[in-house]
Amino acid sequence: MTRARNLQVRYVNAPRGWVREADFAVCEGEIPRAAEGEFVVANRYLSLDPYQRRQMMPGVEYATALRIGDVMVGRTVGEVIESRHPQYRVGEFVCGSLGWQQFSASDGAGVHKVDPQAAPLSAYLGVLGSPGLTAWVGLTSIARPQPHETVIVSAAAGAVGGVAGQIAKIAGCRAVGIAGGAAKCAFVVDTLGFDACVDYKAPQFREALAAATPAGIDVDFENVGGAVFDAVLERLNDYARVALCGLVSQYNLTAPYPMQNLAALLNKNVMLQGFRVGNYQQHRPAAMNDLAQWLADGRLKYRETVAAGLADAPRAFVGMLRGENLGKQLVKIA
Amino acid sequence: MTRARNLQVRYVNAPRGWVREADFAVCEGEIPRAAEGEFVVANRYLSLDPYQRRQMMPGVEYATALRIGDVMVGRTVGEVIESRHPQYRVGEFVCGSLGWQQFSASDGAGVHKVDPQAAPLSAYLGVLGSPGLTAWVGLTSIARPQPHETVIVSAAAGAVGGVAGQIAKIAGCRAVGIAGGAAKCAFVVDTLGFDACVDYKAPQFREALAAATPAGIDVDFENVGGAVFDAVLERLNDYARVALCGLVSQYNLTAPYPMQNLAALLNKNVMLQGFRVGNYQQHRPAAMNDLAQWLADGRLKYRETVAAGLADAPRAFVGMLRGENLGKQLVKIA
Repeated sequence: MTRARNLQVRYVNAPRGWVREADFAVCEGEIPRAAEGEFVVANRYLSLDPYQRRQMMPGVEYATALRIGDVMVGRTVGEVIESRHPQYRVGEFVCGSLGWQQFSASDGAGVHKVDPQAAPLSAYLGVLGSPGLTAWVGLTSIARPQPHETVIVSAAAGAVGGVAGQIAKIAGCRAVGIAGGAAKCAFVVDTLGFDACVDYKAPQFREALAAATPAGIDVDFENVGGAVFDAVLERLNDYARVALCGLVSQYNLTAPYPMQNLAALLNKNVMLQGFRVGNYQQHRPAAMNDLAQWLADGRLKYRETVAAGLADAPRAFVGMLRGENLGKQLVKIA
Repeated sequence: MTRARNLQVRYVNAPRGWVREADFAVCEGEIPRAAEGEFVVANRYLSLDPYQRRQMMPGVEYATALRIGDVMVGRTVGEVIESRHPQYRVGEFVCGSLGWQQFSASDGAGVHKVDPQAAPLSAYLGVLGSPGLTAWVGLTSIARPQPHETVIVSAAAGAVGGVAGQIAKIAGCRAVGIAGGAAKCAFVVDTLGFDACVDYKAPQFREALAAATPAGIDVDFENVGGAVFDAVLERLNDYARVALCGLVSQYNLTAPYPMQNLAALLNKNVMLQGFRVGNYQQHRPAAMNDLAQWLADGRLKYRETVAAGLADAPRAFVGMLRGENLGKQLVKIA
C-alpha cells in the first residue's frame, strides 16, 4: 500500500447478460483529503456481494444505482487515517459503503465503528456485518419461523445463506440448504450444521428437494430466484413465508426465467416480502448482539474466500456470481 | 321448478387450456332428504366466480379441489325447505357453498343465515357475500392503504374488484381500475366512482397505466396476473403491498405468462400476500357490518349479470372467464 495514489475500480460498461471483467476498469485517483466534518479511511477489506450486480442493471431505480464511470459500490472495513469529524479519530476502525477503492472520504453517513479486538476485521463484512444483518432480518423480522418448521435457504454456502440456515437451526427449525455442487453441499451440512443440502446442479434436483423436505416448506429464505425458486414454490405449505432477499440467478440474464409455479403464492396463502437490508438498519443493534453472542458461543460458523488486491476484484466478483466462492467473498486491499 | 328432480351441473372433464361448456354435464339427481342434524335448501341463486375455475386445475391441492364427476362447487343462496337441524327452520334463508344444483343437504358447516328483508337475496352472493368479504380482507386486513395512496385494482368491473376500488375510495385513496374494454372502464369510473380506469386491451395500455398513476402505485389488489400484473409491477413504489387475490388470466392457459418484472418485488421492498378468503372468515362480521353500512349510505354501488337457469350456468361461466359479464355473475335457479 502506498499513499501516493488511490487505486479504484470503476464501472465502465453496462453488461448485457453476464458481467465481464472488461465492464470494470482499474484506475488511479487522488487520495481524498478530509473536508470540515469529514474523515478519510484507508480500506483494509472490500466485500463483494450479489446486490452490487443488481446496481449495474439499467433501469433499476435504486437510490444507489450506478452510473457509468462511477467507482463501484461496496462495503469496506478500514482505518481512519485523517479526521476533521468530531466523532471519528485517527486510528479508529470503521465499516461502511465506501466503494471499491483504497482510500475513501466520508461524512459518517451510514458508517459505524467496529472493534478490531472483538473479532477479525473481515468478520464485520460478513457474519457481523450486512450479510449477518440480512440473514437476521429475513428470518427474525420477516419470516419468523416457529420450532419444527422447515426452512429452506438457497445459496446456502454463501455469506448470507450460511448465516440464515444457522439462525433457523438456533430457532429450532429443520434447515435445508440449496447449493451448487457436492463440495458446497458437504460444507453446508458438515461445517454449518444444516440438516440437509440439495445440489441444484444435480439432474434429480426436484426429487432431492422433495426428499429433503418431507413435511413441505414453511419458510423460504430466497437468494436465487429462477428455476431454484420455482422448485421451492412447488413444496410450499399453506401460510408459508418467503423472505425475498436476492435473485442472483437472474442478474446476468437478458430475459428472466419463465416461472411456472407462481400460482402457489395464491393457492397456498403465501406471504412474500422483498427486502433490501438498507431499509432495516433499525434492527442492526439487536442483530449484532445476537450474532456476536452466537459467534462467541461457537454456534455460528463462517468461511471466507479472500482475493488479493483490488486489481483482482473484478475477476473475483465475476467468479462469485458464477458460484466459485465458498462463504463470504472478500478482497484484501491492504 | 319442480321437486320431482334435482337439476345439477357436474364437472366431467379436466380442461386443458380454455374451459369449455363440454367440460360440464347437466344432470338430474335425487332431491336430498335431511338426515338427523341436517337440513335441505332450495337454492335460488348460484354465484359464478373465477376461483371455481382454479379448482378444476389438476394438481392444485385445495382441500376443496374438484374430482371428475363431482357436482361443481359454488356458493348459493336459498330457502330451507326441510330441517332436522335444531338451528335451522323451514322458511329461513341461508347462504353457503352448496354447489351448482337446485337442492342441497347441509349440516350447517360454512352456512350462515341471511335476511331477505335487509337486502335482495342476490346481494348475499355479491357485495354482502364472499366477494364483498374478499375485497374487504384484501384492503382492510392485508394491504391497508393510507389516505392519498394510489390503489390499483385489476378486474375492476368484476364482483370483487368493484367493491375493492370503492373501499379504497372510502379510505381516502386514489383508486385506479384496470378492465377490458371502454364500456367496462366507463362503468368503473361513472358508476362505481373510481378516479380512473385503464383498458388493458388497448394498444397503449402501459402508457395509459403510467398516466393514470402519476405518483406510482402503493397498493395492488391483484385479481388477474400475467401481463396485467407485469405492467403493474413496473409502477410499484417502495414498500408497495400486493394483495394477491386471483390470477384469472392464467387459469385457462396451458403455460403461464412469462413475467418480466418480478424483480420489482425485491427492488421495491414489496410485501405480497396471497390469500383465499376461506382462510379469513373471522373477519366476516366486521366486514359485513362495514359493507351493509356503506350500502345503506349509498357509498357502495354494484351491478349484476344474471343467467337464467342452471342449464345456462356452463355458458355463463365460460363467458365470465372471458370477461363478458359486468359486475357480479349470477345464475337464477328458481
